[in-house]
Amino acid sequence: MLVFPPALQRLIKELSKLPSVGEKTATRLAYHLIANDRDLARSLGAALQQAAQEVRLCERCFFLSEEPLCSLCRNTSRDPSVLCVVEKPVDLVAIERGGEFKGLYHILHGLWAPLRGQGPDSMKLKELMDRVRGGSVSEVILATSATVEGDATALYIGRMLADLGIKTTRPAQGIPKGGELEYADDVTLSRAFAARNTLQF
Amino acid sequence: MLVFPPALQRLIKELSKLPSVGEKTATRLAYHLIANDRDLARSLGAALQQAAQEVRLCERCFFLSEEPLCSLCRNTSRDPSVLCVVEKPVDLVAIERGGEFKGLYHILHGLWAPLRGQGPDSMKLKELMDRVRGGSVSEVILATSATVEGDATALYIGRMLADLGIKTTRPAQGIPKGGELEYADDVTLSRAFAARNTLQF
Repeated sequence: MLVFPPALQRLIKELSKLPSVGEKTATRLAYHLIANDRDLARSLGAALQQAAQEVRLCERCFFLSEEPLCSLCRNTSRDPSVLCVVEKPVDLVAIERGGEFKGLYHILHGLWAPLRGQGPDSMKLKELMDRVRGGSVSEVILATSATVEGDATALYIGRMLADLGIKTTRPAQGIPKGGELEYADDVTLSRAFAARNTLQF
Repeated sequence: MLVFPPALQRLIKELSKLPSVGEKTATRLAYHLIANDRDLARSLGAALQQAAQEVRLCERCFFLSEEPLCSLCRNTSRDPSVLCVVEKPVDLVAIERGGEFKGLYHILHGLWAPLRGQGPDSMKLKELMDRVRGGSVSEVILATSATVEGDATALYIGRMLADLGIKTTRPAQGIPKGGELEYADDVTLSRAFAARNTLQF
């Protein structure tokens, strides 16, 4: 490390701040960028600067956007009466990939996780309530993950919305498509049985 | 992906060009940089640009440097009569970490690997020969890795140097410090036995 030129040491130090990148990986990446692919070093550097400069949060749903409102909120063909609440932007991307949902979103940017010291203030929850009180929302789909923290957050928000008289739903939990019964865990199985559907003939 | 703002899509695309980074990891990294740690996005971007701009190869030993000559070649307390030949800059760093070697280096930036289409011209070999012909070198340590390609490269270069009457050596191969005999592979064991040392009492 000590014999590397200062600019390279700085690059290694910055790279090792990335999640799940240690000093060895950072050194390998820095060497690759400087010795083998300097064009990528330049273009990646420019892309980082540009994204840090231009990407912000949508003022309405807090998805990532370069405009005050994101492409989804600007899209007038989406149904504004149904809001889908998710934890983070990649969750929205996953739902959009499904192509089923035609309403608007609200990104919490956090979960209610008291064990990690994250209370209701660590989420965009006040903003959600303000949106719902705005009046045009008839249903809120609480699509946080099916984890302990995701479930707790959905219950917490669901109760607050119930006080406002808003219909809240949660995506069905059960055996995933292609999942073998043999390998399903106990909680998944018991939920799948409790929420069993009548077959229609 | 499609709903992400263009600057973020560009960042994901650039990140996914890094070795062993796929689209999922690139998306996760980009989201972390833009949503959680925008300062890191800026400083990493600047470090990349700076390193791509300022770091070049040392004119003498081809290590990485910001000056025409690297810090090692500029260090007058190093012994210029012993040259250590390595494949890549991180090999030099590993040897410097050991602190044993006090001579100068020569980085090949490649190996003789005919199966991967890399002949002698893919290494800084001509430059090594020019340095050795310069006259002040009395020993060349061929410290390429103990792999098939590393061994082949060392033999290839060693034969060329022998024609010039230069003494060439190769680091000892054997059981690594802390290595259990039980788990040593056949080649390592047979080399360790062939090169066994007499104990001095």
